[in-house]
Amino acid sequence: MKDITEFTDLDVGYDVPALPGMDESDIQTPCLILDLDALERNVTKMGDFAKSHGMRHRVHGKMHKSVDVALLQERLGGSVGVCCQKVSEAEVFARGGIKDVLVSNQVTHPAKIDRLARLPKLGARTICCVDDLDNIPNLSAAAVKHGTQIECLVEIDCGAGRCGVTTTPQVVELAKAIDAAQSLKFAGIQAYQGAMQHLDSYEDRKGKTQIAIDMVTAAITALKSEGLDCDIVGGGGTGSYYFESASGVFNELQCGSYAFMDADYGRIHDKDGKRIDEGEWENALFILTTVMSHAKADKAIVDAGLKAQSVDSGLPVIFGRTDVTYVKCSDEHGVVSDPDGVLRVNDTLRLVPGHCDPTCNVHDWYVGVRGGKVETLWPVSARGKAY
Amino acid sequence: MKDITEFTDLDVGYDVPALPGMDESDIQTPCLILDLDALERNVTKMGDFAKSHGMRHRVHGKMHKSVDVALLQERLGGSVGVCCQKVSEAEVFARGGIKDVLVSNQVTHPAKIDRLARLPKLGARTICCVDDLDNIPNLSAAAVKHGTQIECLVEIDCGAGRCGVTTTPQVVELAKAIDAAQSLKFAGIQAYQGAMQHLDSYEDRKGKTQIAIDMVTAAITALKSEGLDCDIVGGGGTGSYYFESASGVFNELQCGSYAFMDADYGRIHDKDGKRIDEGEWENALFILTTVMSHAKADKAIVDAGLKAQSVDSGLPVIFGRTDVTYVKCSDEHGVVSDPDGVLRVNDTLRLVPGHCDPTCNVHDWYVGVRGGKVETLWPVSARGKAY
Repeated sequence: MKDITEFTDLDVGYDVPALPGMDESDIQTPCLILDLDALERNVTKMGDFAKSHGMRHRVHGKMHKSVDVALLQERLGGSVGVCCQKVSEAEVFARGGIKDVLVSNQVTHPAKIDRLARLPKLGARTICCVDDLDNIPNLSAAAVKHGTQIECLVEIDCGAGRCGVTTTPQVVELAKAIDAAQSLKFAGIQAYQGAMQHLDSYEDRKGKTQIAIDMVTAAITALKSEGLDCDIVGGGGTGSYYFESASGVFNELQCGSYAFMDADYGRIHDKDGKRIDEGEWENALFILTTVMSHAKADKAIVDAGLKAQSVDSGLPVIFGRTDVTYVKCSDEHGVVSDPDGVLRVNDTLRLVPGHCDPTCNVHDWYVGVRGGKVETLWPVSARGKAY
Repeated sequence: MKDITEFTDLDVGYDVPALPGMDESDIQTPCLILDLDALERNVTKMGDFAKSHGMRHRVHGKMHKSVDVALLQERLGGSVGVCCQKVSEAEVFARGGIKDVLVSNQVTHPAKIDRLARLPKLGARTICCVDDLDNIPNLSAAAVKHGTQIECLVEIDCGAGRCGVTTTPQVVELAKAIDAAQSLKFAGIQAYQGAMQHLDSYEDRKGKTQIAIDMVTAAITALKSEGLDCDIVGGGGTGSYYFESASGVFNELQCGSYAFMDADYGRIHDKDGKRIDEGEWENALFILTTVMSHAKADKAIVDAGLKAQSVDSGLPVIFGRTDVTYVKCSDEHGVVSDPDGVLRVNDTLRLVPGHCDPTCNVHDWYVGVRGGKVETLWPVSARGKAY
């Protein structure tokens, strides 16, 4: 199975970038490829870490948006469920067989609340976040209407500067209101410090996480004095999971990017001052791209531009090469500086995307490769599920 | 038809952000909406311009990736066909009934060449660009194999700094090779000056376009002396179409963004120093977004972040409002500065995206609205078609 043109009479031949069994060199680009060996090692490693630290790991599905990856994380990493950011994503994961789904976000639109309240009928424990008293009767009414239960976490804004309340009295007020509402269950606290995950310095990240830990500790104490226990105290990302795990108050991690890695995360440093993509985590996700023009001696034009990735966190980095550099990105093209003219038309390069989450969201397929062969194709099952 | 929850027993209720007939206020967000009146006026206006200047308009389908929009441009704007950047897009347009399709890009991978050579069987005139002699026998062999004809434009790099040759002798050499190749037809020149479309100043854009016009004029003269005529001399975008139309050498425009507009294009100036989104073109495309949290007095969190748009050309601008500003974007959230606290949870805002092309590429649907009602849903038919 060497040539996709053998399959072009099949409709499927048009709509996928590769077929299982194919040589890696025959993949049509640009597309996402997953180094399955690296992915499995990352997933296993984080699972082992969580287990050995007595933490549950609720993997962040918003990063990969893939039921197949979530199931791999369950199988190899012992994850207890997923979190995601949208009801439409939660529907995909619940239908895909994930039994415990947290929408780690506010759900406020009437139609979305209605859909959330029906998620338990798909067999999934259903949890969402709350930061607004007015939201509670609406969630409650929808759960009553559908005869289901929605569990609610009170979200604390511990530095991300987005959703969430900022004081302990607000946390207690919301928790009591949830506890009193029919068909809702107060389930604990959501405290994800999103803004500091990407700070380069380990000590800076530690300091910011300590603020979150202090806020959460105060909230737990106040809630306990009201007779309210937290089943879930969730937070932590790829740049901080060891701090939450050592805190004594968090019990669930919510890491996402560790599984795939990207260029922006790769640049942050561990406690020994080493980049986290040099030992802690392996690059498992790449944009495979092909040289399509080399009409100028020192410049190769590749087929992965803005439609194949998000550049919000910087340009992609060419994996395993120091002789060529991705220097510019337009809608359909990347410009690769090739000072020695080493590249040829139809050569391929592996790009490490600047930011994995929004890059995965523009692709329909993960092409899983191992030993130079395409082993599997996984749909980006929740791609585009933004509402 | 006021409430999407009435439809939630239908599968379609989950997978679309709106239904025809619905009030605009019931749309689930974030999603793309098209102001159909504004879109139709833009399309008609550009069509009238092209006609009155004796130009053909081959609309750029890579911007909207929508068969429905391309058909509207044919019907109201008299367009002669589409250009697009990928074979996979061309397949979608050809299957959707577009009879004249230019892949305004190089096609070099064997599987893609094979697919390109089969496009005429879908009923579409098939054209691509060439900037490499080695590419020509491969295109020819595929066309011979499938019993079809591929028309080829020689691409001139007239300033974009991407694909294309830069000297007249190279143009002539390529054109002669195409002309001599079995089942290929030399069809003319591609000369799109992509890099200057977004320069603010009209005079700066005029100067850069003049360089392209001079290069193209020299190439046409040299080709004519070899007995080679150019059926197509194509180029021009939303920031330059009047220059190519007045050139006397270009005969096809390739405008895309004029139909939808975006914040980055809107900021450039016309010959009178006026922004082009203040008179020349109307904003027809918006990201509809909803306030999902307002836990801080001066800050509203909306549901359109990096998964709902590309921020490569800057943050979105809130349409029709001066009291609130979109100031920050993360994966799932936008932070809106609301100094007077005027916004409430579930209020909606229309965002003008920074850059329309890669923003459209993350969405599955255009929700067409008119007079406060949803009139139609159009799939983003070639979304994700990157290979």
